[in-house]
Amino acid sequence: MNYSAIDWQLDDGLLKLTLNRPEQMNAFTIEMANELEHAFNRASLDDEVRVILVTGAGRAFCAGMDLSKEGNVFGLDESLTPSLADMHEQLDAPDIHAGVRDTGGRVTLAIQACRKPVVAAINGAAVGIGATMTLAMDFRLASEKARIGFVFGRLGIVPEACSSWFLPRIVGLQQALEWVYTADIFDAQEALRGRLVRSVHAPETLLQEAEAFARRLVQDRSPAATALSRQMLYRNSAQAHPLEAHRIDSLAMFYTSIADGKEGVAAFLEKRAPRFTSKASSLPPFYDEWTADAVGKQD
Amino acid sequence: MNYSAIDWQLDDGLLKLTLNRPEQMNAFTIEMANELEHAFNRASLDDEVRVILVTGAGRAFCAGMDLSKEGNVFGLDESLTPSLADMHEQLDAPDIHAGVRDTGGRVTLAIQACRKPVVAAINGAAVGIGATMTLAMDFRLASEKARIGFVFGRLGIVPEACSSWFLPRIVGLQQALEWVYTADIFDAQEALRGRLVRSVHAPETLLQEAEAFARRLVQDRSPAATALSRQMLYRNSAQAHPLEAHRIDSLAMFYTSIADGKEGVAAFLEKRAPRFTSKASSLPPFYDEWTADAVGKQD
Amino acid sequence: MNYSAIDWQLDDGLLKLTLNRPEQMNAFTIEMANELEHAFNRASLDDEVRVILVTGAGRAFCAGMDLSKEGNVFGLDESLTPSLADMHEQLDAPDIHAGVRDTGGRVTLAIQACRKPVVAAINGAAVGIGATMTLAMDFRLASEKARIGFVFGRLGIVPEACSSWFLPRIVGLQQALEWVYTADIFDAQEALRGRLVRSVHAPETLLQEAEAFARRLVQDRSPAATALSRQMLYRNSAQAHPLEAHRIDSLAMFYTSIADGKEGVAAFLEKRAPRFTSKASSLPPFYDEWTADAVGKQD
Repeated sequence: MNYSAIDWQLDDGLLKLTLNRPEQMNAFTIEMANELEHAFNRASLDDEVRVILVTGAGRAFCAGMDLSKEGNVFGLDESLTPSLADMHEQLDAPDIHAGVRDTGGRVTLAIQACRKPVVAAINGAAVGIGATMTLAMDFRLASEKARIGFVFGRLGIVPEACSSWFLPRIVGLQQALEWVYTADIFDAQEALRGRLVRSVHAPETLLQEAEAFARRLVQDRSPAATALSRQMLYRNSAQAHPLEAHRIDSLAMFYTSIADGKEGVAAFLEKRAPRFTSKASSLPPFYDEWTADAVGKQD
Repeated sequence: MNYSAIDWQLDDGLLKLTLNRPEQMNAFTIEMANELEHAFNRASLDDEVRVILVTGAGRAFCAGMDLSKEGNVFGLDESLTPSLADMHEQLDAPDIHAGVRDTGGRVTLAIQACRKPVVAAINGAAVGIGATMTLAMDFRLASEKARIGFVFGRLGIVPEACSSWFLPRIVGLQQALEWVYTADIFDAQEALRGRLVRSVHAPETLLQEAEAFARRLVQDRSPAATALSRQMLYRNSAQAHPLEAHRIDSLAMFYTSIADGKEGVAAFLEKRAPRFTSKASSLPPFYDEWTADAVGKQD
Repeated sequence: MNYSAIDWQLDDGLLKLTLNRPEQMNAFTIEMANELEHAFNRASLDDEVRVILVTGAGRAFCAGMDLSKEGNVFGLDESLTPSLADMHEQLDAPDIHAGVRDTGGRVTLAIQACRKPVVAAINGAAVGIGATMTLAMDFRLASEKARIGFVFGRLGIVPEACSSWFLPRIVGLQQALEWVYTADIFDAQEALRGRLVRSVHAPETLLQEAEAFARRLVQDRSPAATALSRQMLYRNSAQAHPLEAHRIDSLAMFYTSIADGKEGVAAFLEKRAPRFTSKASSLPPFYDEWTADAVGKQD
């Protein structure tokens, strides 16, 4: 609850999570990873949180992994020799969790599993994990001063944080391959042309416009339907056949129609704002993974 | 065979299916769902039908679910408590089929399984299921007067009709999420910028241009190869590895090369139009799902 | 090793593979397929090869299957009646391999499994397999004189070479369907608008610019990290859930961080070029398919 690398600020349904190491350009540390994972899991189940805005304190969004740390900056335990079998069978074993699992991926999986819309306001440099963490957020709004780079290749390592899953879905394969191979740092306009960012804003208005956009996503919306819609778009679209989507759709429509849909139809016919009562914290128990594993347990 | 909510008009290979409740802006009903599902299954196996054009009678394409009906407009049986297991094991059980399954999804699954190209001519409002049903059609041509909206969020419900499978594949994840969360109704130009519609047309020429486009898709084409190409693009692209596509490709090439390919090569070398003889109704029996389940049985 | 339908030219890390039947507009033959499959498998394991550029000799890139050959131009054994089960259980049986499997697909699977970036310089006509083979290459740079067409429909056959897997991932479903159904031959500008090609170049500068682009992809890069990044983008993005990507990411980060990552971080902090020592030929043995099957055995 007491975060030190990030800041949690909740105001009337909008949670602003600020990467908060401005002297270090918000460089990413294991501590920041743990705090972000905790904060997204917490926000997912906190019904006071309707929508999440992520930005950086100071002039950077996040300048990537903090390379100034002593020792193995990635937190790896080099005495291990992990195999793919381990990653399937022992993913949550303490030594694999602490010494092998990609910390950025733990964060993006928590973001992806979150039951609330997530907006990134990229106010400056977003490099390495600073870029890949935004891919699991639903929208990327960028300042004209934003500089973005999937720079892993310069360090001899691979893109992480599930970015190989997200990036081609957002910008297509050809663009994704170019940014990953070149490892270039590019500006907001190139990001816009490549469809990575939704829109580009003047530095002085970015936060205000991102907040207005974020609030509009949940104004007069059903918390349960919003949470389910988010998961359906990420998960159903990755299924091998639309029949799988139909199974989830049918259940989600069944339960949301009964929960908030009657009120929604009544309000529509009466030309008034709806009064939805569902809670994202208590979704219908029809999809095990949504209600337990994927959202993660709070510690 | 006797449709009342839609109109079936077959002219020289082109089937025009018209949503035909103009006084109600072609609002969607259970009856319309059943008729559309039937019509697409029928057209899939009718060798007289080469290509399908879908449009709306009057000034709307389809204004969404008909909310003026008495009782549960979604046709749900609220005495049931369906689980995900039911949706896997009892999908076609009568009570699940009638009381739980999303009616829009039954329609889009029939469209997706269809063996003929499908063109939507969006002549006016296409809202809710009126928007999502077009996602399973191969092309969306829009009138300048078209207004499109994935408005489910306004009613407290989720996007349906397998739209979470189709929409990100057509417009990318970031755009799909924005249209679903905001639930806004947008115009043809925004739909074009977002790559949802293929092209925008003057209202008075939309139908004529859509018909010409539809006919061009099947002119001098092999019915079997067209049917297989359609399914391959939808299905192979969703496989986890291109090796799966290679298996299907190889079989599809083997059978179409023998069936129509020899004539195609001969016609090409002789610089004349080909005379293809294959029938979409009798595809090679190499993919169980294509020949039975997915296409559906005619009643 | 002695190729006749293609040319292998290795210069300081850049392998230029030239389709080399200029009198026949580099029309595709079974021999060319075998040589391309061999060359990509060889290049994948040859540490002298850092990046691959593919182009055509003379004025065409590849004018499609050579239809002037006697007999069955597709190399099919019509005495067989292959089933989908055969394609799963006997894919590498000699008669299936020689008489049923799509030759174009054998080539694109070898390209997709390759451990080096691949750039297509489309210097002229790229039609049929001449178009689909480029889809498994990471980038398509086109001459203003390029003409591209997925023309299979004109011959009564289906798109092959796993193009139904690749094309929608590169250009989206709606555009893919239009090019496949119409079977039109289109120019470089339409290819650019549809996001099929990365960039369009003057004919006289295409090769030079493609070479400079290709070299930039691997300059000061880790061979192992580049190889893994390429496979991760193609494979992880096709998984049903990002958790699968996280498993691969974690292992790939673990091994590349230890192999080349330490040097990469040191070089970054010392503001000097890195000296990476990993080899693409000896990737960490954590993903069976990467190290054996998918890359293929050299003959």
